[in-house]
Amino acid sequence: MIPVAVIGASGYTGLELIKILLQHPEFDLVYVAASEGGTSTDALHPALAKLFSVPVEKADAAEVASKAQLAFLALPHKTAMGFASELLAHGVKVVDLSADYRLKQETYEEYYCPHVDAKNLPEAVYGLPEFYREKIKKSRLVANPGCYPTASLLGLLPFIPHIKEGSPIYIDAKSGVSGAGKKLSASTHYVNINENIFAYNPVTHRHAPEIAEKIDDLFVTQVDVNFVPHLIPVTRGMLCSVYMQLENKIDPIAVLNDIYKDEPFVRIRTEPVDIKSVAGTNFCDIYAVRNGDSLFISSAIDNLLRGASSQAVVNANIVCGLDEGLGIPLFAYVP
Amino acid sequence: MIPVAVIGASGYTGLELIKILLQHPEFDLVYVAASEGGTSTDALHPALAKLFSVPVEKADAAEVASKAQLAFLALPHKTAMGFASELLAHGVKVVDLSADYRLKQETYEEYYCPHVDAKNLPEAVYGLPEFYREKIKKSRLVANPGCYPTASLLGLLPFIPHIKEGSPIYIDAKSGVSGAGKKLSASTHYVNINENIFAYNPVTHRHAPEIAEKIDDLFVTQVDVNFVPHLIPVTRGMLCSVYMQLENKIDPIAVLNDIYKDEPFVRIRTEPVDIKSVAGTNFCDIYAVRNGDSLFISSAIDNLLRGASSQAVVNANIVCGLDEGLGIPLFAYVP
Amino acid sequence: MIPVAVIGASGYTGLELIKILLQHPEFDLVYVAASEGGTSTDALHPALAKLFSVPVEKADAAEVASKAQLAFLALPHKTAMGFASELLAHGVKVVDLSADYRLKQETYEEYYCPHVDAKNLPEAVYGLPEFYREKIKKSRLVANPGCYPTASLLGLLPFIPHIKEGSPIYIDAKSGVSGAGKKLSASTHYVNINENIFAYNPVTHRHAPEIAEKIDDLFVTQVDVNFVPHLIPVTRGMLCSVYMQLENKIDPIAVLNDIYKDEPFVRIRTEPVDIKSVAGTNFCDIYAVRNGDSLFISSAIDNLLRGASSQAVVNANIVCGLDEGLGIPLFAYVP
Amino acid sequence: MIPVAVIGASGYTGLELIKILLQHPEFDLVYVAASEGGTSTDALHPALAKLFSVPVEKADAAEVASKAQLAFLALPHKTAMGFASELLAHGVKVVDLSADYRLKQETYEEYYCPHVDAKNLPEAVYGLPEFYREKIKKSRLVANPGCYPTASLLGLLPFIPHIKEGSPIYIDAKSGVSGAGKKLSASTHYVNINENIFAYNPVTHRHAPEIAEKIDDLFVTQVDVNFVPHLIPVTRGMLCSVYMQLENKIDPIAVLNDIYKDEPFVRIRTEPVDIKSVAGTNFCDIYAVRNGDSLFISSAIDNLLRGASSQAVVNANIVCGLDEGLGIPLFAYVP
Repeated sequence: MIPVAVIGASGYTGLELIKILLQHPEFDLVYVAASEGGTSTDALHPALAKLFSVPVEKADAAEVASKAQLAFLALPHKTAMGFASELLAHGVKVVDLSADYRLKQETYEEYYCPHVDAKNLPEAVYGLPEFYREKIKKSRLVANPGCYPTASLLGLLPFIPHIKEGSPIYIDAKSGVSGAGKKLSASTHYVNINENIFAYNPVTHRHAPEIAEKIDDLFVTQVDVNFVPHLIPVTRGMLCSVYMQLENKIDPIAVLNDIYKDEPFVRIRTEPVDIKSVAGTNFCDIYAVRNGDSLFISSAIDNLLRGASSQAVVNANIVCGLDEGLGIPLFAYVP
Repeated sequence: MIPVAVIGASGYTGLELIKILLQHPEFDLVYVAASEGGTSTDALHPALAKLFSVPVEKADAAEVASKAQLAFLALPHKTAMGFASELLAHGVKVVDLSADYRLKQETYEEYYCPHVDAKNLPEAVYGLPEFYREKIKKSRLVANPGCYPTASLLGLLPFIPHIKEGSPIYIDAKSGVSGAGKKLSASTHYVNINENIFAYNPVTHRHAPEIAEKIDDLFVTQVDVNFVPHLIPVTRGMLCSVYMQLENKIDPIAVLNDIYKDEPFVRIRTEPVDIKSVAGTNFCDIYAVRNGDSLFISSAIDNLLRGASSQAVVNANIVCGLDEGLGIPLFAYVP
Repeated sequence: MIPVAVIGASGYTGLELIKILLQHPEFDLVYVAASEGGTSTDALHPALAKLFSVPVEKADAAEVASKAQLAFLALPHKTAMGFASELLAHGVKVVDLSADYRLKQETYEEYYCPHVDAKNLPEAVYGLPEFYREKIKKSRLVANPGCYPTASLLGLLPFIPHIKEGSPIYIDAKSGVSGAGKKLSASTHYVNINENIFAYNPVTHRHAPEIAEKIDDLFVTQVDVNFVPHLIPVTRGMLCSVYMQLENKIDPIAVLNDIYKDEPFVRIRTEPVDIKSVAGTNFCDIYAVRNGDSLFISSAIDNLLRGASSQAVVNANIVCGLDEGLGIPLFAYVP
Repeated sequence: MIPVAVIGASGYTGLELIKILLQHPEFDLVYVAASEGGTSTDALHPALAKLFSVPVEKADAAEVASKAQLAFLALPHKTAMGFASELLAHGVKVVDLSADYRLKQETYEEYYCPHVDAKNLPEAVYGLPEFYREKIKKSRLVANPGCYPTASLLGLLPFIPHIKEGSPIYIDAKSGVSGAGKKLSASTHYVNINENIFAYNPVTHRHAPEIAEKIDDLFVTQVDVNFVPHLIPVTRGMLCSVYMQLENKIDPIAVLNDIYKDEPFVRIRTEPVDIKSVAGTNFCDIYAVRNGDSLFISSAIDNLLRGASSQAVVNANIVCGLDEGLGIPLFAYVP
């Protein structure tokens, strides 16, 4: 068993990490920390009663290093990079669920804040296994993708070679409210979400540059990405609708099947996808249809799993040389 | 008081018509019919108990004509046109909520079925008051727009003069489940909708040609309309996200304010719109923002009111020479 | 027109009061205040855009008195009684939606806090029109009932004469989340409510003594009231299930019909009631069935309307000598 | 590995059985049947794509017997008993999820229909492990309890020794809609459930005699059970509120802790329970509080798991001499 740590256990992604790791055949969850410490796992998450009751520590890098070989960071951005650099210095491998190592320094600093770990940033690998698997294998610092970029990129990347030159991409994304975290705010108040839907941060959300940068990184193409997220009245799940123009009259299902034929966690559907079939799993379900020169792609993931915690464990599996499907949730919360 | 009839009282739009007409200061609801007859209004709709209990007849055109000057048809398409032609022959004005008179004959027959009232079709006026008000005034046959076209067209029409030539329009629409009607089906089963979202009939929904045809009718421009509707887990309300490319760097809010400045039922918002603020009303709330050459428009309506019944009563007000706001619901179901 | 004021406009009940009063044929809403002031009605409630945009003042009793004859107080308890006593001293009639005048002083002080307006408390009338109508007519200070007591009392009071002596009453109540107000808290966070249900404050909620005291006041009987409220994943509506033991084998529907036969806002149902049929209205729908010596009563109201704002306007109608149904919402948010 | 069969794979409980059995370390799911046959598991349940694609047969007892040692029957009542008797004759052990073997013959025939397997009925054991574990061990025919009786009995049985003689029990139960199954009906239509709550079959539901009979069976006491189920707008989960009168001033939490201290699937809570903490698991969470002589008990389960499929697998584990927790889901669908 490989000893691992979860740093940032109080939020939803921390809870999901714990749930997956407790059922994982090769990872042994030996250390759990949160920003405050002084509590226990089942006090933080009452659903863990009778299942997992251990102290939640105030995170300390030396202590992590003394116990664990790999740490999952489910911390807010900015906090994460400070802690990651310490862990790396102590020889602990890191899978970071924050935004801190996902972007080039200049992009990061434009959209977030000054970067405090420029030293390690260049060696971070973007943890989208379908496109960065070989690099992840050799990495000790994985930047786990954002939920919106995961669903968007898995849907649209196969079609970048077919995009009409100079044409924009439009991504209309819909996310369950758990993506907004546990924090209290008007936009997570039940009354404001229930029986409602609305866009937020249209064309200015920070996941747009993440998507654009990865397209550029993989295909050396600069595409105009227009990204509009919406909150929908569901707790978990994310659906991304992508609209783009094509150069040729390709068969989109054939393109998808070709690229993803050996991928264990992508399912190509011949009917529009839904979020219930992926909620609770690491799957990304994808459907696409062409209308003349236009393409519509619909991709669905569980925002907390494929969009965060289960993808993080897949990355950890790869980093540690394990089968990447070990301990990864597959069975959807259906019905 | 002007005597009016509701034909097709058993569905949701029939119920909404009844609720509006019972509170209307100038219309007197004197005749209520449904395909079957043999029941009463409060048996069909228990929420009407103690409020409106009259017999629901099996619809008969001669009887309608003997009692009412205007009839609202909330019937399925195909049934509507058969009945409308009889009513018109009897001198009854018609506001038809079905699709039967919304399209040119060739378009209709391509997407629906053979048209059985080609005689009256040419004189039907499309009941989107903001763009067809003068024609509605002189009409005796109003084709009430579909819910998706209402929300989409009100959002995008102001920008058609600014569209980049040859570029497509993408409409990502989200509808509450009441739009699917009372009929039992797998896609209205609670378990399939709750905690879920999915597209249906992507790029093939019959409201796409309705949108394209009205753009052409008003601006003599053929635009490639790509329309993808989704079902969301709410009962009522509809949000349409429109994506398009612009010729010039216009200020979209200024464009909207300019066109709709005198319109009583359109509200231009400077923040993304939501459906709760319009549910229960005839308002269409619109927001738009530009990102370089790309435009994102977000419009929200109540699918059963502005998308059907309250817009129908506005049209009836106009047809009858009344103030178009008479008896029209304005106060949203908030919270 | 009778000039009236709303004090406490920022919450949900304040909004509902405004919506009703704007459509009321005899009340003229001339003054709107909130604890802070310095804003406007449509800034507080964006759904009021284009409908009602007036300044929201910091409440001042003298100014209210100079403009209005009657004030609705939608303030937190404790704040309400301080302001009410000032208004009464200025000759303004008061309908208070808080708990401050609902209970006898000793009961109030046991469950809330010291009472600061003992002078006016004895003349306050409990605003449940079906049982206190004659007293309300002569009152200048109405204590509008709580939402739970309204639904519970309307259901159970008709059966108090038939209760088995010494037997307890059990009330299992289910409330929509709007009852918890706009305030942010873990128990109004979307994720904690959605796909969930739970009891809160079981057998210790402050509405239990309100129910018990009114039973005693009306029937001179002390009944052991066990009250357990639950939050359910809906925004508005409340269902109260009452269980009790009977002395005799009465026909419960006949008992209800007999007592409520002339009441405009109570509907006796012969099938179990639901909240959708009353949401958006002032109706209380009631059903009851006997099982041997046991009785099950199910009553449904809109918690913000019959449980607060529309009942308050009914009380104001009565206080002002108007028809009590004037301007009261009747048509449910169905579908 | 022990070969097992699922008969009745098309419904929700069939799907849950499949999901559990595919992850079970000792059971090998070798045969899947449904009433119609001629399909495959992933055609019936698209969420099983890439996970489990085998033919779904038309059920045949001889074929089951040739392949499996134990069969789970997720069939409608009446169909189940016909098939169970055949399986038993072929030497196959049966865990029956229907009502067919839960009741004494006379009770069954009063509430359901004539019993066609009176021969095997007497040897059926009621599959509530906490109270029938020893009998289940020796059984070859387990009658899996209904969801409502499971939650109700686990909550109230510990208090039967303390009930005030002759006093009734009131059970106010709230169930997610998945309990009503996949069948289309007005009461599973999204629009009728969303933003709604209502009782159904009050005091006449067939689960009341199941509860009463088991109380009598275990404590030789006839208690007047008044059972009122409600549908709530959630997909899965069930909360049962029980109200009863006590003989003595017991400490209810102490009573519960005492009885369930060694039970792996019951958690005693010191705060009111919620359904999110048990959804997705086999846990029953229980809370209770006393108010004078009255007791309020609140118990929560996942209606499809502890109320059906996971409890069935626990029973199969016991019947087969395995650890009863093998392969049983423990981690809740939280958030």
